[in-house]
Amino acid sequence: MITGKLITVEGPDGAGKTSVLEQVVPLLKERISQEIVTTREPGGVAISEHIRELILDVKHTAMDPKTELLLYIAARRQHLVEKVLPALEAGQLVFIDRFTDSSVAYQGAGRGLSKADIQWLNRFATDGLEPDLTLYFDVPSEIGLARIAANKNREVNRLDLEKENMHQRVRQGYLALAKEQSNRIVTIDASKSLAAVVEAALQHVLALLET
Amino acid sequence: MITGKLITVEGPDGAGKTSVLEQVVPLLKERISQEIVTTREPGGVAISEHIRELILDVKHTAMDPKTELLLYIAARRQHLVEKVLPALEAGQLVFIDRFTDSSVAYQGAGRGLSKADIQWLNRFATDGLEPDLTLYFDVPSEIGLARIAANKNREVNRLDLEKENMHQRVRQGYLALAKEQSNRIVTIDASKSLAAVVEAALQHVLALLET
Repeated sequence: MITGKLITVEGPDGAGKTSVLEQVVPLLKERISQEIVTTREPGGVAISEHIRELILDVKHTAMDPKTELLLYIAARRQHLVEKVLPALEAGQLVFIDRFTDSSVAYQGAGRGLSKADIQWLNRFATDGLEPDLTLYFDVPSEIGLARIAANKNREVNRLDLEKENMHQRVRQGYLALAKEQSNRIVTIDASKSLAAVVEAALQHVLALLET
Repeated sequence: MITGKLITVEGPDGAGKTSVLEQVVPLLKERISQEIVTTREPGGVAISEHIRELILDVKHTAMDPKTELLLYIAARRQHLVEKVLPALEAGQLVFIDRFTDSSVAYQGAGRGLSKADIQWLNRFATDGLEPDLTLYFDVPSEIGLARIAANKNREVNRLDLEKENMHQRVRQGYLALAKEQSNRIVTIDASKSLAAVVEAALQHVLALLET
């Protein structure tokens, strides 16, 4: 039985979601006693990390969009079964950096695959499990792309080599999802200062935990 | 446009399908001028071979059945797009050692995943392409398993470590499919001598090419 809560963190590249999460979690730990797990997709467990390597390998330029989607879904399934579900069953608060909405935004809006197909695959992988809360970090493409360009420590991977208008399509995909599933997805303006974004995210998480 | 023909080769482990194929192809080459391509799943192209390594890795004992299925489907998609479709569009005769029916038999009947889900995934990967002919090599489990045990050159992989009753469930899955889709699947008694099985397979292929 699931007694924990699942929070997913979403956004186009350069939205700063990983940096925000790194600050939100220590602040939360000062306030709540519940154990907190932070993890990411694709990856998080050995099999899914191997799938991640396969997806991001710069040599794999021949990868078909459907292959890419299926690999993300496979990584999601394994990560869920091996790591996320056990933590939720142990009553923990689980943050995942990217989950089902990333597939809809990137492979759907971004690459043009059918949204209905992606949603079918997401349900297949998750057995219908949905996040209790999704923090969507929204950022205009010019800011997101400028942040990526400024981050010299970040390793360039296959997906960075894609055309820039991909970024805009991905953002539009997220905005449409946030509108459709407003019961679960909150939109946070991630063009603001890091401190302001962290505070906004923290308040949404605390509000969920009080319910 | 597809002007070639697709023949898939199926059967439980130890049915001898790979050995049969190795003899049928040279015999066919003596009789027809059409170019022949033989390939296998999972694998056949670089990305799919990497997926194959991931599936068969003996360290991956934690692999969930749905993850395994999704990886097979991803390998199928990539192999189809990169290798099978171009060959069919070039008018070639393509043999694939394992295709969509393997997923139904192994992950469906074998592991208990939903047949309807597997069929959905197969259609997603293939865009609905079906083989022109499927040679199903049927062998009772005791013979199939004895052949595997006798073959010392064959490397033991993760799937060989599964329980033996898996073999029987897989065979039952194949027999049910062969009954349902008798328009495309021919059943060949693979407990007979190799020469007899090769001859039967050859006749079915020649019959297809004459239509």
